[in-house]
Amino acid sequence: MEIPLGRKVLEANDKVAEILRGQFRERGLTVINMVSSPGAGKTSLLERLCERLAGRIPMAVIEGDLATDADARRLAPYGIPVHQIVTGTTCHLDAGMIQSALERLPLDGIRLLIIENVGNLVCPASYDLGEQYRVVVISVTEGEDKPLKYPPVFTAASAVVINKVDLLPYLKFDMPLLRDAVHRMNPGAVVLETSCSTPEGALPWTEWVAARIGAD
Amino acid sequence: MEIPLGRKVLEANDKVAEILRGQFRERGLTVINMVSSPGAGKTSLLERLCERLAGRIPMAVIEGDLATDADARRLAPYGIPVHQIVTGTTCHLDAGMIQSALERLPLDGIRLLIIENVGNLVCPASYDLGEQYRVVVISVTEGEDKPLKYPPVFTAASAVVINKVDLLPYLKFDMPLLRDAVHRMNPGAVVLETSCSTPEGALPWTEWVAARIGAD
Repeated sequence: MEIPLGRKVLEANDKVAEILRGQFRERGLTVINMVSSPGAGKTSLLERLCERLAGRIPMAVIEGDLATDADARRLAPYGIPVHQIVTGTTCHLDAGMIQSALERLPLDGIRLLIIENVGNLVCPASYDLGEQYRVVVISVTEGEDKPLKYPPVFTAASAVVINKVDLLPYLKFDMPLLRDAVHRMNPGAVVLETSCSTPEGALPWTEWVAARIGAD
Repeated sequence: MEIPLGRKVLEANDKVAEILRGQFRERGLTVINMVSSPGAGKTSLLERLCERLAGRIPMAVIEGDLATDADARRLAPYGIPVHQIVTGTTCHLDAGMIQSALERLPLDGIRLLIIENVGNLVCPASYDLGEQYRVVVISVTEGEDKPLKYPPVFTAASAVVINKVDLLPYLKFDMPLLRDAVHRMNPGAVVLETSCSTPEGALPWTEWVAARIGAD
């Protein structure tokens, strides 16, 4: 029997992810894996989260990008540990990359770890990183049909953040249609509407995260 | 010597792409491969292109999506041949998929073939489809840093379409910074600013395509 390489790679990833999940659980660490298209606003949501939680809750971030440490630099002002993974041409983070990153990112005392994945609404769906929560971010400018057109990432999501709602007045956009599309793919997903243009606009997201770590 | 599978897959793809390129050349067919993040506006740009060219220039479209034939249905009103490839979980189109699609999409008399890739700013960069022109579409809502953060797709582009410029008044967005980022990655790329909210807004794109087939 021949096992296609894709499946072997994913099985190997899943084994490492299970080890990570056990380590996270032992430490009482809450881990969130953020997935989205490029430019949907993951880093802006993280900035708003740091404003709300950094200093109150010990937290750390792992950034994944093909190139540059621009996202890590954006989070530097908040004084939390940030580790940047530069993937080169690899289109997703995998559990092995997280395992390596954790050798350089001490987790002692940390209660919340956010992993910002490579901007890609397809490939990260297949790679379990050992997280408890997967959050998909989409921007209202991407259109209402995205959950139907990119099913895998939505079916595995704990929460779907619909970002940039401050642009709604300038778009033809049907929010009930998008919510319906999300729930057709994933009836259990929490849907949060956000804008990062003000701290208040990001509250549904920051409150949701705070509640996950009992800090609400 | 062991060749990593990734390289073998890409070498096999390149061989098929070369065969396709030869066939396209023999037919005098101009082929454009459109690549972008999900929701950047590839299909809207195609709608505007069909409005401009369908009926005047014999053209055909291959649509790539993980799921649904929604994009093919959007183009149905223009009465051109459209073939939808549904990739399932595969994050890009490859040359073999195009070869198979062409068995069902008769090219006799066709002068322009547009391939709309899966919405993904990473993986399609590695897969030559035999096209003469690769066009990357980004939306102004994605931010100015995308070329620096997703280099491979930009370095291979003939043209970069900056779409949704009608939203600029509502965004903090530095167009010269984005143009500079594009040209740092790819000094030869043509940069076109578009909006699909009016036919006039899409003119830089439709004129550029028309000029490629000598129809301007």
